[in-house]
Amino acid sequence: MRKFLSLCVVALISSASIIGQNVNKVYIPERIGEVRQEIVIPNIGDYQVLKCDFHIHTVFSDGDVWPTYRVQEAWRDGLDVISITDHIEYLPHKKYVKGDFNTPYELAKPQADKYGLMLVRGTEITRKQGVIGHFNALFIEDANAIPDDDPFVAVQNARKQNAFVLFNHPGWAVDTCLVTEFQQRLFDADMIDGIEVVNHMEYYPRVVSWCIDKKLPMFANSDEHGIISEDYTTCFRPMTLVLVEENSQNGVKEALLVGRSIAYTDNKFMSTEDLLLDLFEACVDIKMIQHSDKKNVYSCTNKSSFPFVISVNGGGKKVIPPFSTIHFSASNKKNLEITILNMWCYEDEHPVLKID
Amino acid sequence: MRKFLSLCVVALISSASIIGQNVNKVYIPERIGEVRQEIVIPNIGDYQVLKCDFHIHTVFSDGDVWPTYRVQEAWRDGLDVISITDHIEYLPHKKYVKGDFNTPYELAKPQADKYGLMLVRGTEITRKQGVIGHFNALFIEDANAIPDDDPFVAVQNARKQNAFVLFNHPGWAVDTCLVTEFQQRLFDADMIDGIEVVNHMEYYPRVVSWCIDKKLPMFANSDEHGIISEDYTTCFRPMTLVLVEENSQNGVKEALLVGRSIAYTDNKFMSTEDLLLDLFEACVDIKMIQHSDKKNVYSCTNKSSFPFVISVNGGGKKVIPPFSTIHFSASNKKNLEITILNMWCYEDEHPVLKID
Amino acid sequence: MRKFLSLCVVALISSASIIGQNVNKVYIPERIGEVRQEIVIPNIGDYQVLKCDFHIHTVFSDGDVWPTYRVQEAWRDGLDVISITDHIEYLPHKKYVKGDFNTPYELAKPQADKYGLMLVRGTEITRKQGVIGHFNALFIEDANAIPDDDPFVAVQNARKQNAFVLFNHPGWAVDTCLVTEFQQRLFDADMIDGIEVVNHMEYYPRVVSWCIDKKLPMFANSDEHGIISEDYTTCFRPMTLVLVEENSQNGVKEALLVGRSIAYTDNKFMSTEDLLLDLFEACVDIKMIQHSDKKNVYSCTNKSSFPFVISVNGGGKKVIPPFSTIHFSASNKKNLEITILNMWCYEDEHPVLKID
Amino acid sequence: MRKFLSLCVVALISSASIIGQNVNKVYIPERIGEVRQEIVIPNIGDYQVLKCDFHIHTVFSDGDVWPTYRVQEAWRDGLDVISITDHIEYLPHKKYVKGDFNTPYELAKPQADKYGLMLVRGTEITRKQGVIGHFNALFIEDANAIPDDDPFVAVQNARKQNAFVLFNHPGWAVDTCLVTEFQQRLFDADMIDGIEVVNHMEYYPRVVSWCIDKKLPMFANSDEHGIISEDYTTCFRPMTLVLVEENSQNGVKEALLVGRSIAYTDNKFMSTEDLLLDLFEACVDIKMIQHSDKKNVYSCTNKSSFPFVISVNGGGKKVIPPFSTIHFSASNKKNLEITILNMWCYEDEHPVLKID
Repeated sequence: MRKFLSLCVVALISSASIIGQNVNKVYIPERIGEVRQEIVIPNIGDYQVLKCDFHIHTVFSDGDVWPTYRVQEAWRDGLDVISITDHIEYLPHKKYVKGDFNTPYELAKPQADKYGLMLVRGTEITRKQGVIGHFNALFIEDANAIPDDDPFVAVQNARKQNAFVLFNHPGWAVDTCLVTEFQQRLFDADMIDGIEVVNHMEYYPRVVSWCIDKKLPMFANSDEHGIISEDYTTCFRPMTLVLVEENSQNGVKEALLVGRSIAYTDNKFMSTEDLLLDLFEACVDIKMIQHSDKKNVYSCTNKSSFPFVISVNGGGKKVIPPFSTIHFSASNKKNLEITILNMWCYEDEHPVLKID
Repeated sequence: MRKFLSLCVVALISSASIIGQNVNKVYIPERIGEVRQEIVIPNIGDYQVLKCDFHIHTVFSDGDVWPTYRVQEAWRDGLDVISITDHIEYLPHKKYVKGDFNTPYELAKPQADKYGLMLVRGTEITRKQGVIGHFNALFIEDANAIPDDDPFVAVQNARKQNAFVLFNHPGWAVDTCLVTEFQQRLFDADMIDGIEVVNHMEYYPRVVSWCIDKKLPMFANSDEHGIISEDYTTCFRPMTLVLVEENSQNGVKEALLVGRSIAYTDNKFMSTEDLLLDLFEACVDIKMIQHSDKKNVYSCTNKSSFPFVISVNGGGKKVIPPFSTIHFSASNKKNLEITILNMWCYEDEHPVLKID
Repeated sequence: MRKFLSLCVVALISSASIIGQNVNKVYIPERIGEVRQEIVIPNIGDYQVLKCDFHIHTVFSDGDVWPTYRVQEAWRDGLDVISITDHIEYLPHKKYVKGDFNTPYELAKPQADKYGLMLVRGTEITRKQGVIGHFNALFIEDANAIPDDDPFVAVQNARKQNAFVLFNHPGWAVDTCLVTEFQQRLFDADMIDGIEVVNHMEYYPRVVSWCIDKKLPMFANSDEHGIISEDYTTCFRPMTLVLVEENSQNGVKEALLVGRSIAYTDNKFMSTEDLLLDLFEACVDIKMIQHSDKKNVYSCTNKSSFPFVISVNGGGKKVIPPFSTIHFSASNKKNLEITILNMWCYEDEHPVLKID
Repeated sequence: MRKFLSLCVVALISSASIIGQNVNKVYIPERIGEVRQEIVIPNIGDYQVLKCDFHIHTVFSDGDVWPTYRVQEAWRDGLDVISITDHIEYLPHKKYVKGDFNTPYELAKPQADKYGLMLVRGTEITRKQGVIGHFNALFIEDANAIPDDDPFVAVQNARKQNAFVLFNHPGWAVDTCLVTEFQQRLFDADMIDGIEVVNHMEYYPRVVSWCIDKKLPMFANSDEHGIISEDYTTCFRPMTLVLVEENSQNGVKEALLVGRSIAYTDNKFMSTEDLLLDLFEACVDIKMIQHSDKKNVYSCTNKSSFPFVISVNGGGKKVIPPFSTIHFSASNKKNLEITILNMWCYEDEHPVLKID
């Protein structure tokens, strides 16, 4: 507890010393301003890992903020790619806020170019949750050409623009993660390309199993309506990590279409076992530092911004915080099996790393 | 540095343990939600100390957020009173955002009533800085009745509604704090009721002297266009502390008209010496705990949320953090003189507390 | 996450600006130095609530630090009372560290007097855990007169000095909280005056029930061997809160002998239902702020340094952080029942506050 | 401010949910335990950068803690090399603490081997400050063979063991950094191999100039007597960064003898301009991201755990926090000149990086 106190004091002393240096105008200490916090993830083989959020709102539907703010916010948060996906059908501010369905993108685009952030054009088809549901159309060309009274036609309109169609928050506001008749029809028509296993502050373990069974990529999106930094205070914001060969809109879309995504929220990761183990091995170095007849001692160094939680040979959990090292010992009678407890490759399964 | 690490770990462990408890839908740990952080200031005699911000913007002029957000934000920040003061003349979003000059107030009012936050109707008359300047009209009845091509008439229109007229950020975007011809005309006509000594991240020491010389109350306002919690991270947001007899709009206005305000920013306070000493004595208990021939030892306990920085009998500075106690010793040959270094009662003067 | 970054930046800017002001010798920014963080708990009726730790070690048995450090540490942590209780029988440093069983007290006493911290003379009778166990003798006169080969005689020696005898960590290093034959003999002879329900980072719910059934006061002690600030980073250190009529050694001992203690650890409290409700009501103000036909809205303000977690009429849990306010609504058809979830008055029972 | 609150709440919620799961014995959430926080500095060419502290005390002279604690503390702090340098002549605990001058090393060594921390044998020759002064003898073989009534002979004794002799805190407890007659005699006899430009919380700018003029390596040491984590809360502990070809005692000593060290404290660095620029370039990537007729925009990414403060072409200061990116623009009419304001290569000079 004492540390918070002392931060306050250090800041205070510095600001106190600045007072009155200039009787005309004195600035209080500079604030952090425009700084991007890098989320450190080493490359995975030849793939670069892009940090993406494909579901965000603004005042143009039911969000609290102006589109340009979403770009600044994402850049500062260390993201590489965002899509602003204001609702087509839910427009509570429409008495005061005008424009068409492309306006949020067009207002945000110059800001995105300035910051070097990739802005994917998108929108959210928004019907009754638990019956039809919500679907993001991503990588579209014209949001104004998508609306239709028939939700199936609306999704078809998105498809005509080669949209990537995302099934949003299957478990939000309903008791269980069940596929409705309409959603099954979309699955049957191959009109769903990915599913959110994480939406805002919700995580749907069962949907991890769906994605594995259906071979669809997993997404974690913020669906932010308010302010990211006020919602996520002890972890990074929800992100869809996309493993790209090329840092471009095509590169991202192609990676998603073949399933190279990892959903991240609240210090946990969801994807296929292969991708999760690739990520873990790219981030964590394990090496033997002592060897004896009975047991070996290992050093485990985390080079990334994420913490990991492991169990060695079925033992108690061990946390490896970001940019940290821990030691552990293990019998040398058998191969090392490391279960990564904050990664999930099925609703009730963790990936296991085996080391000879 | 280690403490940040461990906070992350504790949060991680808890969230990790929650994973997978329910295969249908699992919530990640609850976030802080709607909590108001109280800023603790004991009453000063019979006065209650209200925390106020009389200068804030929304998307209805050049701000980033919707009016309702400003209410939630202020309530969570521990404020009691705010005024949304969108510009009358500067409306960069007007292609997309419609409504009249009363709209921001009307959208925010139901939210303010729900939270029990006092919302003062206001607006900002906004002309060329360094020539005419910016003026907030506060406690008005109808913002639509204020605009006029002649800025003097606009201020007169405010006055017709019994507005409290605030001279905003005298030093912003100009080299020095000088009074222009137009501003002098307002002073001469008794049409300025208070001045900002603090605006957003700027502090104008010279204006402290102006207010003392002109017997006008000092204001510290955020002039927030973005997000308060992203701008102020090591101190509270700028606040105008108003010492009221009655917690009502009339109570606040009356207190301001007789000058009972203290400007706060970045852990420092500006007002008259009397009010500053009253505040210090309400917040800090000083008592002798040891007595000897040569020196006495004193204990100094801060019961408030603010830190204080003092010098005892001209010695080195000592910090008393919020809700903390320090000890100091002093010669018993003379009276104790405590200079409060983070308080200012003139551009280059601190208040001094004398204890027999 | 961004906030940590900005704290670092503010500190950096200030320190950077100080560099080179004096080419001879420049101090880097002052550190927090000797500051006591007050743990704010309002008085409970006529009782003052003292924060105590009756179980601490130094290099004189198997601890890492010198006795004077324990006094500074406790004072800075906001404690009022400590007892240094080095082991009589376990002395791993004895090849290098000399002195008798009173030495730690005698070294620490002048420091305690300087800081105004109450130092209770104590020691730890230390025998095989799970068979005999560990017992603190508190409020003794001479630790050197206590050792004996027979542990029962050692406890009797303590009793001859009117010691308060504490049964330490019943669940440490054993599978369950069971009373051994020797411990039952002590209970039968009325030679145990209190029990630790919390020791260091362990909490023993079953012992809460023991204390209720046996009408013995509950203790929470740190049993610190290392550094408190490195062990407790998201809560205060374990404390035994003692409700005294008089702030003196006699006052503390008398309060303990009649059972006026509350054990605190990790943001939770254990005691009798009466004392817990008294504490909660002293810390939290609840008032109705809106009334309608169907439901009332309440404001709930926490004036203490501790967080509380409540359930209103059996609903979901709500957190009231330190010095914060939350709102909640409740049906006005029945009386308000507030279950305090981070308080325990039996191994599986929370206190319930009923409001008409 | 709100973020601290929410960390508390997240921790609370998690701990609250754990209560009562086991009526026998329940552990409160795991603490951080034994985790090493890595201080990330990329290699500088072929050199690995070791983080060292060559001046630390224990209870065996006037420190507060046992030698083994110093090893754990340093390992957790991310250090690679330490030397415990208890005073030979100042032994305030000697009534209670026995052993010879090699005892602290011998107690700490098994712990250092377990953690893989390099422990350099050392001691501190301690005479009157301002006349003779304090000198650390490092890389010695037997501390017991060093004491002598004549301080010059004591240093000679160290030299006989091929000690590296460090001139400690030239400015501590004296008004200015002046070389005394005795110290000049040591310089003249080539018996000083390095000087502390930083000791604990003091920094001596003039000594930076001394080291440059005398071609001696600069040191920053903690001289810790208390607890590192309680003294350094907004930056890393003082460290002497040593650029080694080989991670071994010989590698460290050789690097020091040829001057490959950088002193670090409080987010600033002192060394020769060459080494400082090497460090900066290893840590920070600068690349042009936009080009126009008038100006270029650059991206500046910090890959290290340290913040940097720069001025571009003489403009205002910009902070690049750890693992962060900022943008800046500069005229394209002239070469880029980046002055690194938190690095010092003479008492009043910063290194300047020129980019074509």
